Amino acid sequence: MNTQDKITSLRKHMKRTHIDAFIIPQADAWQSEHPEPCDQRFQYICGLNASAGYVVVTADKASVLIDGRYTVQAKNTVDTSIFDIEYYTDITPEKWAINNLNSGQIIGYDAWLHTKSQAKSMQKTCNDAGVILQAVRDNPVDTVWSNQPSPTSQTAIKHKIEFAGKTIDDKMHALCKKISSMGAHYSIISAPDSIAWLLNLRTIEDTQSPGVKCFSIVTPAKKNITIFTDVDCSAIDYNQTQNYEVDFLPLEDFPMAIHHLDTKGDIIIHIPDDAPDWLTEHLNAPTIDIVIKPDPITQLKSIKNDVEQDGIRASQKRDAHAMTHAIKKIKNASNITEKDCANILLKERKKNNLFRGVSFDTIAGWNANGAAIHGTPSDTIIDGDGLLLIDSGAQYADGTTDITRTISIGTPSQDMKEKYTLVLKAHIALATAIFPDGTTGTQIDVLVRAPLWNAGIDFAHGTGHGVGHFLNVHEGPCGISPRSNEPLRAGLFLSNEPGYYKEGKFGIRLENLVLIQKHMDKNDPHNETGKDLLCFETVTHVAFEQTCIIRDMLTPVELAWLDNYHSMCG
Amino acid sequence: MNTQDKITSLRKHMKRTHIDAFIIPQADAWQSEHPEPCDQRFQYICGLNASAGYVVVTADKASVLIDGRYTVQAKNTVDTSIFDIEYYTDITPEKWAINNLNSGQIIGYDAWLHTKSQAKSMQKTCNDAGVILQAVRDNPVDTVWSNQPSPTSQTAIKHKIEFAGKTIDDKMHALCKKISSMGAHYSIISAPDSIAWLLNLRTIEDTQSPGVKCFSIVTPAKKNITIFTDVDCSAIDYNQTQNYEVDFLPLEDFPMAIHHLDTKGDIIIHIPDDAPDWLTEHLNAPTIDIVIKPDPITQLKSIKNDVEQDGIRASQKRDAHAMTHAIKKIKNASNITEKDCANILLKERKKNNLFRGVSFDTIAGWNANGAAIHGTPSDTIIDGDGLLLIDSGAQYADGTTDITRTISIGTPSQDMKEKYTLVLKAHIALATAIFPDGTTGTQIDVLVRAPLWNAGIDFAHGTGHGVGHFLNVHEGPCGISPRSNEPLRAGLFLSNEPGYYKEGKFGIRLENLVLIQKHMDKNDPHNETGKDLLCFETVTHVAFEQTCIIRDMLTPVELAWLDNYHSMCG
Repeated sequence: MNTQDKITSLRKHMKRTHIDAFIIPQADAWQSEHPEPCDQRFQYICGLNASAGYVVVTADKASVLIDGRYTVQAKNTVDTSIFDIEYYTDITPEKWAINNLNSGQIIGYDAWLHTKSQAKSMQKTCNDAGVILQAVRDNPVDTVWSNQPSPTSQTAIKHKIEFAGKTIDDKMHALCKKISSMGAHYSIISAPDSIAWLLNLRTIEDTQSPGVKCFSIVTPAKKNITIFTDVDCSAIDYNQTQNYEVDFLPLEDFPMAIHHLDTKGDIIIHIPDDAPDWLTEHLNAPTIDIVIKPDPITQLKSIKNDVEQDGIRASQKRDAHAMTHAIKKIKNASNITEKDCANILLKERKKNNLFRGVSFDTIAGWNANGAAIHGTPSDTIIDGDGLLLIDSGAQYADGTTDITRTISIGTPSQDMKEKYTLVLKAHIALATAIFPDGTTGTQIDVLVRAPLWNAGIDFAHGTGHGVGHFLNVHEGPCGISPRSNEPLRAGLFLSNEPGYYKEGKFGIRLENLVLIQKHMDKNDPHNETGKDLLCFETVTHVAFEQTCIIRDMLTPVELAWLDNYHSMCG
Repeated sequence: MNTQDKITSLRKHMKRTHIDAFIIPQADAWQSEHPEPCDQRFQYICGLNASAGYVVVTADKASVLIDGRYTVQAKNTVDTSIFDIEYYTDITPEKWAINNLNSGQIIGYDAWLHTKSQAKSMQKTCNDAGVILQAVRDNPVDTVWSNQPSPTSQTAIKHKIEFAGKTIDDKMHALCKKISSMGAHYSIISAPDSIAWLLNLRTIEDTQSPGVKCFSIVTPAKKNITIFTDVDCSAIDYNQTQNYEVDFLPLEDFPMAIHHLDTKGDIIIHIPDDAPDWLTEHLNAPTIDIVIKPDPITQLKSIKNDVEQDGIRASQKRDAHAMTHAIKKIKNASNITEKDCANILLKERKKNNLFRGVSFDTIAGWNANGAAIHGTPSDTIIDGDGLLLIDSGAQYADGTTDITRTISIGTPSQDMKEKYTLVLKAHIALATAIFPDGTTGTQIDVLVRAPLWNAGIDFAHGTGHGVGHFLNVHEGPCGISPRSNEPLRAGLFLSNEPGYYKEGKFGIRLENLVLIQKHMDKNDPHNETGKDLLCFETVTHVAFEQTCIIRDMLTPVELAWLDNYHSMCG
């Protein structure tokens, strides 16, 4: 079917089901960073491969809503005789639909693919405009999509207790305590990485998302979790569940289980704020009170235990070895491309028997290509003088890595050296920071940017993100950025990655992973702040680019940190 | 009447009016920092002089709710045979009342003395507990208080255009634009300093609150503001109101004016979030939509215009002269008390003919007394070795000042010098900061604390507060503290006052006032951040205590700032 045929079929289906507009988000029911092929409805309809976006279709118009990252790609891919191209940052999909509908008409959406808060915001806009928002029974795209792939068959492997550090029982106990403290009788957890953490399981078909796709119902009073999934979870270690019951049922049974949930008496159900709107749509009996709060596992798993921290150190060490060797090979090679660099690095990592795959697609950008923050390695040959930015990470059985180094090839310019040293100052500012327990990521972020602002430069991304443990390389809830209001605590595992990007010229990013540790107990006589003082333990040990460091620009404190750091690098 | 008689009368009145509990906040209808004697209902009932607190009375119990600052004072003053002493930081007044009532009973409150958001929060707690919250018609305390003083009679003086910089017309124009952009037909402005700013008037009976106590109705469509006040505002310069109409009516006419407000058709009324709950209680016709948003004048007046900035510089210079001379006299005096210090300073300030009074009660604390952040000068004699902390400010016709210096008498200890130098480092960190337009006070705050955290110390107050222009020395909406989420902009006038307090030993605070200025335009080729870069212009010029500065602890950048600063001090 060509695009016009797809749209025609879609409109027929919409007409039959009395829908005047339909919104197709780039999303699956888990709001995954990497939806599976069967969930690529957005791309199926408009042809564009984007990590975010919407298609909106009415009886006579259609639009693709993207963000600024995809302007060029959309122009090359999307059939503009069929679709308008708009920016969802300017106009929301429901607003675009409303502009093309009359009052009283109906906008359909798939309640599995939007979160509660997304649906709530759509609902408000529709109410204000006198348009009806209606969840559809079946997604019209699935009806039209004749050769829609099946979901990938996945098998979870054991995340051994020697790496996980805590048993399923331990984790269930902590989770049930949190659910009860919310006053809830049930909690519906669906985040794949939350369930993977809870059950000490990992999927490895796609090592960028080692979570377990499922929906689950936790019932603290019965010490039970029932998991609805098509992932083969038979590897689960039942020795770790002496006190709690873990049941598995097929994913397709979940809606019926929700319909038949025991809601006798007044029942309080906790639903995470990132769960699909479908849940709140289908849990609206008068005896049910819904509490929408963040998934409590998000916070529990963000604090790494001692065993996880040991694994984190060990895996970073192994990864540093691979990275150091790869850098040496890249520096000595001639006539290689950005893609070759990514392959050299992959080859080095594969030498480790605990290596399980990459934690995200490697970025390798030579000079101007390095200025694109999320560039894909191209066939550009690394030739002449300049800077090569490599941002990559791996999954090991005992931890996730994420490292960026910017290396010089030939002779770097004075400007490159100055900017490199400024970014290094920013990096060291975080690495050496001491701060009271509970300080937020927003507050800490400024320490990193201050040396750059002084020089009139900045970078348009966060300073750091949370990292999972052999799990998602981007993990909530904490981060270090102008918009990270979560308190920082000992045990968090984060990235430290300031940068500088000169469009058309070069890019610099220096990224290590850090664990937050206690620097001084609150009862220490030298600590008068009344709180524990925390600091960052840098766990990534790969040398910085010596030829790019202008030592005179560094303070004695910065130099001391740097020299000590290099003494720890292989 | 003794306390028992007051409570007995109050309970009789409560019984007669069917109120089972009554909440008496330390507040007036303007939520002033310094309520007038006629509004000191809290102190009248419980005897305690506190800047915040609540009395709650039921038929058989009574409680005084304070915060940690008043623990000692409350123990000495409050009759504990009548009142429990509680902390409102632990239990809200309505919660205390609920704990002592049965479901269905009634809590009374005076809707003039609580803001809308305070009342809303009380309402929620009462609803959850099945207790009825009810605004009383007349405040029972006023009924009982036979010799309640009358409000002070006040006369406003002209704040000359040569100091104000902008005419009433200019300000009304900006205000009406803001009101219209909220979609509102009326705005009810009541903040005394907002109206003083708008009308270029100042009251000087109490120079700590030069505002005009009133309620006002702004009607942009009619280019009118009607001010209900008992302050004599005849000094207003009508030459400045060619395009707008300014009407005055007695304060007592305000409630009737609200009842008779023209609300034909659908009307939108803006009410500031700090306005009394009485307003929303009495504006609830079905044709009225209420928009609760911050008073737009708060933001307008926070950005000081060029004329105001000139006055700010001139007044700080004059004040620095007085302060420098006073410090010299204090250092050379013998056998003087903390109170004497405050008087020496006042005498020096009074030599200026533009001096109008103090902007707040002078704090002067010798050694251990300096460790109390808001201590009152005592009869303690300044004797021996140590540190004297003096925090004071003045009102001049062209600006408000606020300065803290910590001076040494005799020989300061090594610990005092080290801590002084650390606080100075923190002060310089702010003074030299460069940051993009729109960075928040929360973000900037960390730059100041980082050098202290590094040494295991901190201070339990904000780094900086907004300052008015011959107006309140504490002025919103911007500040620099862990809880200041307003964006910082060029033209703001703030304090820079890090400190260190060693209980029982000594206190250090180093406070200058600063104006935010543009450091580099966003179009400057050396500025790649995409935003204007801002910096702080320090406008207070009084030398720091040289004997307390350990120069080896300062970086070259800090030393350069300090030496340059001292070259600008008289």
